[in-house]
Amino acid sequence: MYNFKMSILKNDQGWVRTVALAPPTLQDNTADADRLTGALKIELKTDAVYISFDLLKKLPDLLRKWNYNISCILFKDLNQWILVNITAAENPGPVSGLAVDLGTSRVVLRLLDLLTGNILAESSFDNPQASIGPDVLARIHYAGSEKGLQELNDLIIDGLNQNIVKLCRSGKLNPEQIYLLSVAGNTAMTHLFMGLKPDWIIREPYIPVVNRPGILKAKELKIKVNHLARVVIFPNIGSYFGGDLIAGILFSGINETDDTAILVDVGTNAEVVLGNKNWLIACAGAAGPALEGGVTRMGMMAGPGVIEKIDIDPATGNYKIETIGNLPPKGICGSGVIDLAAGLFNSGMLDIRGKLVPSACGGRIKEKDGIKQLVVVPAKDSGTGTELTISQADFDSLIRSKAAMYTILETIAASVEMSLQELAAFYVGGTFGSFINPESAITIGMLPDLPLASYKPLGNSSLEGASMVLSSRKRLEEIDKIRDKITYLELNVNQDFMNRFSAAKFLPHTNKSLFPSKMPP
Amino acid sequence: MYNFKMSILKNDQGWVRTVALAPPTLQDNTADADRLTGALKIELKTDAVYISFDLLKKLPDLLRKWNYNISCILFKDLNQWILVNITAAENPGPVSGLAVDLGTSRVVLRLLDLLTGNILAESSFDNPQASIGPDVLARIHYAGSEKGLQELNDLIIDGLNQNIVKLCRSGKLNPEQIYLLSVAGNTAMTHLFMGLKPDWIIREPYIPVVNRPGILKAKELKIKVNHLARVVIFPNIGSYFGGDLIAGILFSGINETDDTAILVDVGTNAEVVLGNKNWLIACAGAAGPALEGGVTRMGMMAGPGVIEKIDIDPATGNYKIETIGNLPPKGICGSGVIDLAAGLFNSGMLDIRGKLVPSACGGRIKEKDGIKQLVVVPAKDSGTGTELTISQADFDSLIRSKAAMYTILETIAASVEMSLQELAAFYVGGTFGSFINPESAITIGMLPDLPLASYKPLGNSSLEGASMVLSSRKRLEEIDKIRDKITYLELNVNQDFMNRFSAAKFLPHTNKSLFPSKMPP
Repeated sequence: MYNFKMSILKNDQGWVRTVALAPPTLQDNTADADRLTGALKIELKTDAVYISFDLLKKLPDLLRKWNYNISCILFKDLNQWILVNITAAENPGPVSGLAVDLGTSRVVLRLLDLLTGNILAESSFDNPQASIGPDVLARIHYAGSEKGLQELNDLIIDGLNQNIVKLCRSGKLNPEQIYLLSVAGNTAMTHLFMGLKPDWIIREPYIPVVNRPGILKAKELKIKVNHLARVVIFPNIGSYFGGDLIAGILFSGINETDDTAILVDVGTNAEVVLGNKNWLIACAGAAGPALEGGVTRMGMMAGPGVIEKIDIDPATGNYKIETIGNLPPKGICGSGVIDLAAGLFNSGMLDIRGKLVPSACGGRIKEKDGIKQLVVVPAKDSGTGTELTISQADFDSLIRSKAAMYTILETIAASVEMSLQELAAFYVGGTFGSFINPESAITIGMLPDLPLASYKPLGNSSLEGASMVLSSRKRLEEIDKIRDKITYLELNVNQDFMNRFSAAKFLPHTNKSLFPSKMPP
Repeated sequence: MYNFKMSILKNDQGWVRTVALAPPTLQDNTADADRLTGALKIELKTDAVYISFDLLKKLPDLLRKWNYNISCILFKDLNQWILVNITAAENPGPVSGLAVDLGTSRVVLRLLDLLTGNILAESSFDNPQASIGPDVLARIHYAGSEKGLQELNDLIIDGLNQNIVKLCRSGKLNPEQIYLLSVAGNTAMTHLFMGLKPDWIIREPYIPVVNRPGILKAKELKIKVNHLARVVIFPNIGSYFGGDLIAGILFSGINETDDTAILVDVGTNAEVVLGNKNWLIACAGAAGPALEGGVTRMGMMAGPGVIEKIDIDPATGNYKIETIGNLPPKGICGSGVIDLAAGLFNSGMLDIRGKLVPSACGGRIKEKDGIKQLVVVPAKDSGTGTELTISQADFDSLIRSKAAMYTILETIAASVEMSLQELAAFYVGGTFGSFINPESAITIGMLPDLPLASYKPLGNSSLEGASMVLSSRKRLEEIDKIRDKITYLELNVNQDFMNRFSAAKFLPHTNKSLFPSKMPP
């Protein structure tokens, strides 16, 4: 994985500030709250520091208990700082934050030390809303039913609360010691997380309740952490471009570079951002059924025993297979399918249309219900006891997916009159991005023919972005700037798009000059 | 009463703004909340409009129900506007605010139409905390006992809630139609109102929990009005200079005049503010036991049948008595005692030391336990069936009070090297100010010898000031400016003060040149 340097947490970057207040005297009888905000205003160079009513009630006792030497846990919203809570300046105990990647399928948690920026613990769990429906659409429809929204909201909040308890146990702290949370997810997931009606997200003209939820109280969301904790929810651009992507952009840093780069995130949905420090252009979503049923499904299959890498020796036709956990193979995930297709294509076993060439496959082809099947792993080597096959239909689906992907990339680049070959860097996010072999993806023409070093997998960029705002005030401010900078490109599946799509349905492409490294020498 | 013109409510001054939003389209898919705040940011020329999470949850349905034509009820805190709630733009129904004068003894409520600024209804009730203790000190001590603070808080909040229901009934609306509240009270009362620990208000160095409570949620305070309503609590300068005085300054307008004026408020406590549009200087509180036991007590005695005016004919020695409600006299209040002392002094019945002159009093003098008593009303004319008397001790107390008052006024004026004679206007607030006859007060040397037209009673300036911020955004901003502008003068009862005090213990004063209008022609 591409090695991003996490910005080192300095006191003046982070959310915790230690303040030694002059105790009150007859000559200086400023009230407790105003004494504290006065000091913070100077310290933070601001004219607005807000203290919640709940904190105000505890303030006089705490200030006196700690002799006016305190650590302040702060957060920032709109034009004002929020004093979230205070602890003793000496031996404050753990002061932690929780970054949440709120995935449609899987939720990933990371506990961070707010003083050092160190990772204390990580865990993940399946989004419990999957019991209602596997995808966004099903859940939004269910939210429209009687108490449906409440049920969906309860599922994710309860799931989160249970997992926070476990995570804290492994991090050896108490949920009460979590003061700040940061949540990045797609627009629908964040709406369900907040209990906001998602009905209009999926109905024309596709309007979220809110683009910029800002800072909320954990208590309002029923999240069981410190009773004064605050939650930042990443903003979205619209119904189909969510906070997870904003987090990804933040983590990739493409919003800060001189050279134009691209960020592609393929999770449950597919999103693309192109830009540099001056401009960002984005498009997202379902570019036809190909991408929906293809890349998307494959990207979700990774798990123990699943084939993630395949190498085929063109000379011998032998398969070299790597599985997750080095277990006997049980299935094949997206990156494995792409490797397989690339290997087959290089060996002449798949033609330029993506059709299996039985004569070249050395007895691995079977036919079932009139559809060709390639035996990837014979029964004797399989982890399931039965042979693992992949059908022509799967390859057809892959071809549509890769063509859709390439077409989206071409379209967004063309919208700013660039070619994909001009890109300085290509960031690949999501689970897909973590496992994909760029060489294979280039071979089949799914990704453009850039130098391999240009490809930078981001890993869980949503989680990383969410973590960053917990370590740095500048990063939190950055997410609104990113949001405001993005121009959203509506992908019109028009004739131009369909022409590009048709040309991209060959391996690697009808126009071979786009893939010079894959041309015969 | 001095006739202040209430600023006429214009749309661009008030808290209710009507907005017609462009409904969303595919080309303009901004989220509901951001669409609304975007329009408000332009309308209000601001870059920060906050929508509470509770309102956010209702927003999508309400916007669509009213076809994006809405009235917005706003309030302002620190650097951001708060969108409190929304109603239909057409036929919004009553949109009202509640001004509260949170007195130690009595609480006065005024219901206002936020659209027109009209007064809809008024009422008042005894502060139910009086069951715990009559004064601030007793209540604060009780607040330190187990559950004492909660009990005191419950008393005032329950009392308020009950009286809001009654008031709304008389104003023909529902508490749900109250969206904004404004509360002015002294520092201790506002702390008890908020449930904030008042312990350190009365303990050296006399520190409130908060000087500037700002805008709170009515729900947080358990006030039963609109569930999204907000409450502004007037800021204080310190433990002994509360929000009621800030409200009084706002209402008097001395913070906006070129000429220097003075504002004196004598309620449970005595406070003085001197200043103009450039500066304000204030002092407050208990200037020795004289003022505490004297003016203060008298100022609280007004009620039906109580003598509020007395005129003595120097030629005949006849008393002309006026009572509250024109009932047979039952007692005498502060203003009545001052009238009486002035009349007696003018008739030679009270000497320059404030001692009764029996030979001049025409048989009205009795002696009881060695103390002279003046019969003000014989038993046959009295409303109680027994004669009403006033003792030499009462006059001694009055002399101490009037001397203390004059000394405080002199001291604060001297601190800015002014004489009291230079004052352009003299505002008198509180119940005391409403009834006092300035001519009598000048005669005994309690108030300086200014032209009578300079004296302007303010009535319930706390309630008026509280009302003003509900009608005008500028007024709300003004209260913080007033607070920040005030220099607080600690009244040191030093030798200089005691010298002034001694000189002021004569009628009208040792230095008769200070009272030219009272000098023999």
